Amino acid sequence: MLILMEAAATLDQAQGVLAFLDAGGLKGRIQEAGEALSVVAPHASKVFKAERLEVLPGVRKVVPITSPFKFASADAAPHPSVVEVAGVAIGGGELVLVAGPCGVESEEQLYAVARYVAGAGLRLLRAGAFKPRTSPYAFQGMGSQGLRLLEGVRREFGLGIVTEATEVDVFDEVEEVADLVQIGARNMQNFALLRRAGRSRKPVLLKRGPAATLEEWLLAAEYVLGEGNPRVVLCERGIRTWSNHARNTLDISVVPAAKCLTHLPVMVDPSHAVGRRELVIPCALAAVAAGADGLLVETHCAPEKALSDGPQALLPTDFQRLVVQAEAVHRARQASPPAPGLAF
Amino acid sequence: MLILMEAAATLDQAQGVLAFLDAGGLKGRIQEAGEALSVVAPHASKVFKAERLEVLPGVRKVVPITSPFKFASADAAPHPSVVEVAGVAIGGGELVLVAGPCGVESEEQLYAVARYVAGAGLRLLRAGAFKPRTSPYAFQGMGSQGLRLLEGVRREFGLGIVTEATEVDVFDEVEEVADLVQIGARNMQNFALLRRAGRSRKPVLLKRGPAATLEEWLLAAEYVLGEGNPRVVLCERGIRTWSNHARNTLDISVVPAAKCLTHLPVMVDPSHAVGRRELVIPCALAAVAAGADGLLVETHCAPEKALSDGPQALLPTDFQRLVVQAEAVHRARQASPPAPGLAF
Amino acid sequence: MLILMEAAATLDQAQGVLAFLDAGGLKGRIQEAGEALSVVAPHASKVFKAERLEVLPGVRKVVPITSPFKFASADAAPHPSVVEVAGVAIGGGELVLVAGPCGVESEEQLYAVARYVAGAGLRLLRAGAFKPRTSPYAFQGMGSQGLRLLEGVRREFGLGIVTEATEVDVFDEVEEVADLVQIGARNMQNFALLRRAGRSRKPVLLKRGPAATLEEWLLAAEYVLGEGNPRVVLCERGIRTWSNHARNTLDISVVPAAKCLTHLPVMVDPSHAVGRRELVIPCALAAVAAGADGLLVETHCAPEKALSDGPQALLPTDFQRLVVQAEAVHRARQASPPAPGLAF
Amino acid sequence: MLILMEAAATLDQAQGVLAFLDAGGLKGRIQEAGEALSVVAPHASKVFKAERLEVLPGVRKVVPITSPFKFASADAAPHPSVVEVAGVAIGGGELVLVAGPCGVESEEQLYAVARYVAGAGLRLLRAGAFKPRTSPYAFQGMGSQGLRLLEGVRREFGLGIVTEATEVDVFDEVEEVADLVQIGARNMQNFALLRRAGRSRKPVLLKRGPAATLEEWLLAAEYVLGEGNPRVVLCERGIRTWSNHARNTLDISVVPAAKCLTHLPVMVDPSHAVGRRELVIPCALAAVAAGADGLLVETHCAPEKALSDGPQALLPTDFQRLVVQAEAVHRARQASPPAPGLAF
Repeated sequence: MLILMEAAATLDQAQGVLAFLDAGGLKGRIQEAGEALSVVAPHASKVFKAERLEVLPGVRKVVPITSPFKFASADAAPHPSVVEVAGVAIGGGELVLVAGPCGVESEEQLYAVARYVAGAGLRLLRAGAFKPRTSPYAFQGMGSQGLRLLEGVRREFGLGIVTEATEVDVFDEVEEVADLVQIGARNMQNFALLRRAGRSRKPVLLKRGPAATLEEWLLAAEYVLGEGNPRVVLCERGIRTWSNHARNTLDISVVPAAKCLTHLPVMVDPSHAVGRRELVIPCALAAVAAGADGLLVETHCAPEKALSDGPQALLPTDFQRLVVQAEAVHRARQASPPAPGLAF
Repeated sequence: MLILMEAAATLDQAQGVLAFLDAGGLKGRIQEAGEALSVVAPHASKVFKAERLEVLPGVRKVVPITSPFKFASADAAPHPSVVEVAGVAIGGGELVLVAGPCGVESEEQLYAVARYVAGAGLRLLRAGAFKPRTSPYAFQGMGSQGLRLLEGVRREFGLGIVTEATEVDVFDEVEEVADLVQIGARNMQNFALLRRAGRSRKPVLLKRGPAATLEEWLLAAEYVLGEGNPRVVLCERGIRTWSNHARNTLDISVVPAAKCLTHLPVMVDPSHAVGRRELVIPCALAAVAAGADGLLVETHCAPEKALSDGPQALLPTDFQRLVVQAEAVHRARQASPPAPGLAF
Repeated sequence: MLILMEAAATLDQAQGVLAFLDAGGLKGRIQEAGEALSVVAPHASKVFKAERLEVLPGVRKVVPITSPFKFASADAAPHPSVVEVAGVAIGGGELVLVAGPCGVESEEQLYAVARYVAGAGLRLLRAGAFKPRTSPYAFQGMGSQGLRLLEGVRREFGLGIVTEATEVDVFDEVEEVADLVQIGARNMQNFALLRRAGRSRKPVLLKRGPAATLEEWLLAAEYVLGEGNPRVVLCERGIRTWSNHARNTLDISVVPAAKCLTHLPVMVDPSHAVGRRELVIPCALAAVAAGADGLLVETHCAPEKALSDGPQALLPTDFQRLVVQAEAVHRARQASPPAPGLAF
Repeated sequence: MLILMEAAATLDQAQGVLAFLDAGGLKGRIQEAGEALSVVAPHASKVFKAERLEVLPGVRKVVPITSPFKFASADAAPHPSVVEVAGVAIGGGELVLVAGPCGVESEEQLYAVARYVAGAGLRLLRAGAFKPRTSPYAFQGMGSQGLRLLEGVRREFGLGIVTEATEVDVFDEVEEVADLVQIGARNMQNFALLRRAGRSRKPVLLKRGPAATLEEWLLAAEYVLGEGNPRVVLCERGIRTWSNHARNTLDISVVPAAKCLTHLPVMVDPSHAVGRRELVIPCALAAVAAGADGLLVETHCAPEKALSDGPQALLPTDFQRLVVQAEAVHRARQASPPAPGLAF
């Protein structure tokens, strides 16, 4: 249930609701989104009727959350969520671009990319220090040493860091450095990792699994949210289909479909979705036009030498072109009225 | 092979090339696209070396066509093709919007939709008189009577007509009325129908099959082109995958991928792709941003009463919003430089 | 509705039911399957209550057909259908093997294969005279000349002929020669062809489309059945998925799933399903174990010279091994009690 | 490389080879499979030519391993691997049946199932104590308490235990109890868990991910094998496709395809593959016919009360029927000669 408080309700009153729920064996959480407080309580409807709660002090109205995910549901928040990452608001109406190489490979490589990423006006850089790889014989990332380089980049260029925690054992270390901790597509149903992310003090970027339905994706987010971390950003990165002109199939309609069901921000990673440089920009623009809150793109100053995913990395000049075009499409979309039927 | 003629070459000289090919048992075709003539001859490389052809009068250069489709290949044309339909140029840089109901249901319904479609500035209307339906018990369209109504709409509103020929036996009749004859997704590999379309004097809209790869789609176009009809427009309409939030998965990256491989224009039908009204506009805008030459959308003044596909038809007001937004996104894209790596 | 007649009911009484339905604007059909007559009448429930029909002379009981397909529904027949093809009963409990080359290529090739197919005890041969091909430049079959060779094979070896009608225009000619007319996978929703097959005096083998759901497949069968041809055999031949070790994915569970929903016999074509010779026999045996009524396999005496689909054709010795193993598995399955939950 | 030793070669000589490889910075492993020793050394070909190794004492021949997976490759073993689990040989030619409830729910439930599973002659029981669930609100298993019950079952009925380790943190505990530790489909690319399994002293059952290609599956096995645990059993459990008559699509051809590429045993779990009781037996028999080394099936004495996956659990009587039929099909297949083209 979503328990909406009066505009004038106090935090004490909201805590009173929590206490009441607790007495019924229920967990809940206070939200400050919007102009008034609210309390989200999954499964409260199994214990209490709405009327029992609506008489509590400060409560204005109780509405059911009918979807299988509770904290993630659009019903559970009066407004779309804005997740702040290193001073950048994701989900607040601005288009957020995050760029960088697939993996940290060397100080030289990382700094070169960071320089032109920052130069193009971006405030967040993506790069993997730990890399999950299909083959045990492929480059597995620089690990802790890569994290040190990412710290350097933040100091040097003022860029917020988006980097992946590939397993529970490296989460502490990654969390220390990352401004936004990425959970990769293959780990979307690594429930131990999701629960750990849910106990993190950092926001989490949850990539969609290559064979996950929208509902499964939102239930994965629910694992994170349910542990107490409300700062989750979703990221579509292509799904596995038989269509063979690209590495994966960018499921563009999941962007508006997700926005119908959840209050969480939705980003798109066109680089992993298509895997071919020449398709990245058109698909990135498509994502912006479809309403994505941001993009995660790979760029490399020498993609032919990249240790992973070189064929999909944008060249520096292409990257700069993308930044200009994406902003233009975003403004065009914003200038005209919102698409109908969308919750947000 | 693509045999490029000198800028000053005459039609007689191009016909001389055809005669030479014919003597070798080869078919070819003269193209007038671009600033000079050229001759496309599939499989000429199996009979002649380039040098044998380059000495013919008026020939400037011979280039191989390496893809399995010859007439459809980007290599086979110096420029992207522009297909003219009722005075509207598809593929020439302008965004072409085509809208209308899924099927012709009555004069009243058709005229009501045509009125606001024309009122929004569109010049092409889509509506099926013959409807291919999964079940023999579903509404199969008004048939010939529906074609009569479409003729009326053209007279009354000056709209060009896009309508489907569902089988060889109705092609003559449909061709009489249509300005652009649609081959539906389920018929993409109906080779008899494709060959008939190839002998049509009208341009052809070839929808991608729900399980067709890009290469198979272009080979289907080759059936039409090879019979002598150079006016083919491709149309992506969603593919069948396990992703279940929409009826089909709009394969957005096929738009730029197709443009890498072929000179034919590429449109997108977001309505059939998603099957849910609230996802149509975001996906339509995505298609424009990805570089589609046009959109085919369903709209109905009373979708809840539609005899087919009501849930995906845009309401009149939504439709008008789409027209404004699509144009805005298209202009934003055009204003900034083209995406890299694309042939066109 | 399925209108079951008394055991002693006469044909006249069944025709009386038809006449009654006709007066209500309904089509129906008399079936002789089982120990008594019955009448199938799709949509009769929209016009009449069961009681109205149950009082007609000779009527024993009226049962609803709730599935979207009526004639094809398991509810519409008291027993599984047996389709007789050139003296061979498909669906009657015996395992029916059909083998031959992908296409008729020459008298020499066809007779060589027919000789060892007949020699192995088979009574039906498959081979395409007309071949639907993805590319217009691929071998399209020998056409009418191929049909002549197939007629020769029937005379010479006493084999029944299974061959494909690729389009309406060649149906008459194919029907003349074929004992079982195949509708290919790409034509599963070629409704004109399905309706033509429904007016054929020959039984029809309906292959499942590579992206067709079970329901869509049965609705395609309904097009044939609804036109009056009750002799339809279904054939699974692999579906299109992302799984890339085989050409298609043999959807083995569709065999028992189909048998839950329909009374029609179900065969399997493992050759097209996997496209790799070394996987054909294991998958053929799997199909038999899953309950398929028969197999359609490709074999060629010199697969490396085949003009189409060579890599999937069994060598003569492998083919003979398959015949032995398939029979052994079939007997093992028959000897033990039937799987639970299956209608048949 | 696979370094084959002379029949008379000693363990000391094989260790000499290891030492030589070690000096070149290479890892290797001695195998005792077959009539002679051999040494598998991934990537040795990058450092040494075959001749350098063939002169070492006791070495008979050096053969390359060309596939991306080395320890898992069919090239890396002279014979198919046999993995022994609680006295049962998986991969040795006998059909191995493993059955039990989806999850441990209570002592009563578990013992009831174990009683009839053992009574049917099975020697291995499957049941999850820890359950990975898509939703955080679904039954997550009895955990440690469930493991205690599984220990009881082993003592009471002499059944070996197959149970899942859902995450690294519970591996120690699961390993203590399990005779075969299952890695679930969603964890197929949980590399931390795979590496932990590779350091286990227990054999590992590696389920295929719902969207994993055969190559990705074998590379996942390589993570386990590469850490030093040679006892890996593969298990196909259905893949995610658009085909909607069953929960997943049982990819039956992956069984023979896997056997072409790897020496590891391959089992099939038809219960998770189809998710509907009435399809389980036909698909189980298909798996046996296709050459699977064993089956993993769900059975429950009261499926309608099961806390997870009830609809796919076989009833006790059906289960007993399956045991009889599977054995019959297996014997029929064994009695006839092996399918051609298979390595094993």
